[in-house]
Amino acid sequence: MPAPHPFTGVTRPAHPMPGATRTIALPSPLRLHRGGELRAGAIAYETWGELSAARDNAILIVTGMSPSAHAASGPEDPSPGWWEPMIGSERTFDTDRHFIVCVNSLGSCRGSSGPASPHPDDGLPWRLRFPAVSIEDIADGAAAVVGALGIERLRAVVGPSMGGMTAQAMALRHPQLCPNLIVMSCAARSSAFAIALRSLQRQIVRADPGYANGQYAHAIDVATGMGLARKLGVATYRSPQEWRERFGRGRLAERNDADPFASEFQIESYLDSHARRWAGSFDPLCYLYLSRAMDWFDLSDYGGSVEAACRQMAVERALVIGVATDILFPAEQQEEIAESLRAAGADVDYQALPSIQGHDAFLVDIPRFAPVISRFLERL
Amino acid sequence: MPAPHPFTGVTRPAHPMPGATRTIALPSPLRLHRGGELRAGAIAYETWGELSAARDNAILIVTGMSPSAHAASGPEDPSPGWWEPMIGSERTFDTDRHFIVCVNSLGSCRGSSGPASPHPDDGLPWRLRFPAVSIEDIADGAAAVVGALGIERLRAVVGPSMGGMTAQAMALRHPQLCPNLIVMSCAARSSAFAIALRSLQRQIVRADPGYANGQYAHAIDVATGMGLARKLGVATYRSPQEWRERFGRGRLAERNDADPFASEFQIESYLDSHARRWAGSFDPLCYLYLSRAMDWFDLSDYGGSVEAACRQMAVERALVIGVATDILFPAEQQEEIAESLRAAGADVDYQALPSIQGHDAFLVDIPRFAPVISRFLERL
Repeated sequence: MPAPHPFTGVTRPAHPMPGATRTIALPSPLRLHRGGELRAGAIAYETWGELSAARDNAILIVTGMSPSAHAASGPEDPSPGWWEPMIGSERTFDTDRHFIVCVNSLGSCRGSSGPASPHPDDGLPWRLRFPAVSIEDIADGAAAVVGALGIERLRAVVGPSMGGMTAQAMALRHPQLCPNLIVMSCAARSSAFAIALRSLQRQIVRADPGYANGQYAHAIDVATGMGLARKLGVATYRSPQEWRERFGRGRLAERNDADPFASEFQIESYLDSHARRWAGSFDPLCYLYLSRAMDWFDLSDYGGSVEAACRQMAVERALVIGVATDILFPAEQQEEIAESLRAAGADVDYQALPSIQGHDAFLVDIPRFAPVISRFLERL
Repeated sequence: MPAPHPFTGVTRPAHPMPGATRTIALPSPLRLHRGGELRAGAIAYETWGELSAARDNAILIVTGMSPSAHAASGPEDPSPGWWEPMIGSERTFDTDRHFIVCVNSLGSCRGSSGPASPHPDDGLPWRLRFPAVSIEDIADGAAAVVGALGIERLRAVVGPSMGGMTAQAMALRHPQLCPNLIVMSCAARSSAFAIALRSLQRQIVRADPGYANGQYAHAIDVATGMGLARKLGVATYRSPQEWRERFGRGRLAERNDADPFASEFQIESYLDSHARRWAGSFDPLCYLYLSRAMDWFDLSDYGGSVEAACRQMAVERALVIGVATDILFPAEQQEEIAESLRAAGADVDYQALPSIQGHDAFLVDIPRFAPVISRFLERL
């Protein structure tokens, strides 16, 4: 197993690598979807539970833009994962019955190869030399992990947010692997509004002098731009309704009177704390690459419509979950996926949840998401 | 009449000052709402039509954050104003019958005193020496113009967006002046979501190295930060629905292949063009001051609730207009104003319009706004 990359640019990783994280090597050289070539690529993943003798109990989780493969704690890494309440004994993704696999996306900086990984020629970070990454490549990377584990047919592929795009791309490109699909808070293709916000986030990062045209020494050098981009992200990951209830117009107890524009409202300090945790902990170019990949992805590129693309899949059953307060991937976009899969012959359960947590509801509104997903898995 | 300020920092003004713009001098020194002191202050305004002998046909327009007093063309300045289709002979604000006054907000850089105006002591821009400006001060500045014109009772006060806050503050602080209120796309107090976005915009501006802690030489030095903040503004001034219809996932004909993150989608180039027009044309500190004033304003500061504040007004009739797709000031916030005014005894017409242009609908969906406002004025 390769050692963790020495040049990730990550100064405060979300959890100490590698712990339970394993990696597989990708074929090298590997031609990517948009024509670039990747050498010495690797994909990081974690697993929970036991693969059955028939190798038929595996559930694959593909992630949103920033999470690592560490979706839950386990014997080798007891730190809580990003979807901790969903994975474990007698939880929705029940490790007593299922073999759960979570993959870190190609292009990320959490163990899989990306712009922050060392280039095989000089050991320096790839930075802008890294080939353009598409959702299709992320899907292929996840499929490579599944193949390396000897699994030919997954019980289900689960994708929230960007992972929902990855799951759709997997079902399209590896239909035999993906008979059952669970996607949530995603889209078959991003809207103009989502593209606008992500494009702006990318510009905010690149406007930071520390970005230095992608030649920054460490992620922390771009802390200002990354922090501001993160705030815009957080602002759109939750909902105005939630913030009204949580913060309203509540004031901070203390204020820096030396700065006439210092934070005064609780909502501002909430965003400040998110920005602080994020800046330095995620590589700026990995962020730019994955953000751009989400803009590019368009399922209707395959056959001219989302429905035509769904006909090229072999999805038997699908659970599609949308959230009424999601402003980034509004529920209509989940409906489009559900209707297209149904038109293509799949048995589709579409659930519109009234969570007030917006796009991030799948991470926090466990009381609504867990039973819906559990019931679907029960029926498989 | 004072000459236009030589140190506005504005390199590309929206329209050449002064043209039809007049100014009045404020009392000096003037104590502002939050305790600061302003010397040699001035308020800019324009008028259209004729004040009747009884001085009873005046309609005052108070503006959103960025517009000048040049709301419409006229003999002295034929360039189109920011609300051109609404003002003129036989238009909604009918200059054959009404005397229309539009005031530039205190704190702005369009002729009224603000951080970009020359300090009376040294002639250099006030910058951060300018006292903190509140919506209450903007309202008092507008009332000073009306008083200087010899008007004791307005036919109506009209305020869109930030101007809606100003109109409410005027009705509260100058009740005898404001028996009839027309407010739209505003709030009695900003939501946590709106505060979050504006706080982020202010940080984006201040993160620009050209901002130099407020000591920039010219507005154009802060073009990057102001342009990015403007993009976030535009992203929230319109609606996802409108962009889906206008741009969808449409691509640009040309793309700069030398830049891996260059704009590719039409929505990106739309934002680019807005940012270009804005950067350098509005003073950064004026923007920060007015943005902060909107966060601060809270009608419920007066008596503990919005309704209690409305009881301190003397509003007889009000038209309150909300737009279903406004994400910055959602329609519920207009409903709150309408219900509070009604509870305080006013005759209130509340209109929820289905425009898809979001917060900016009052500027562009003239076919919906014009008849609603015309009918209300007819009844007065």
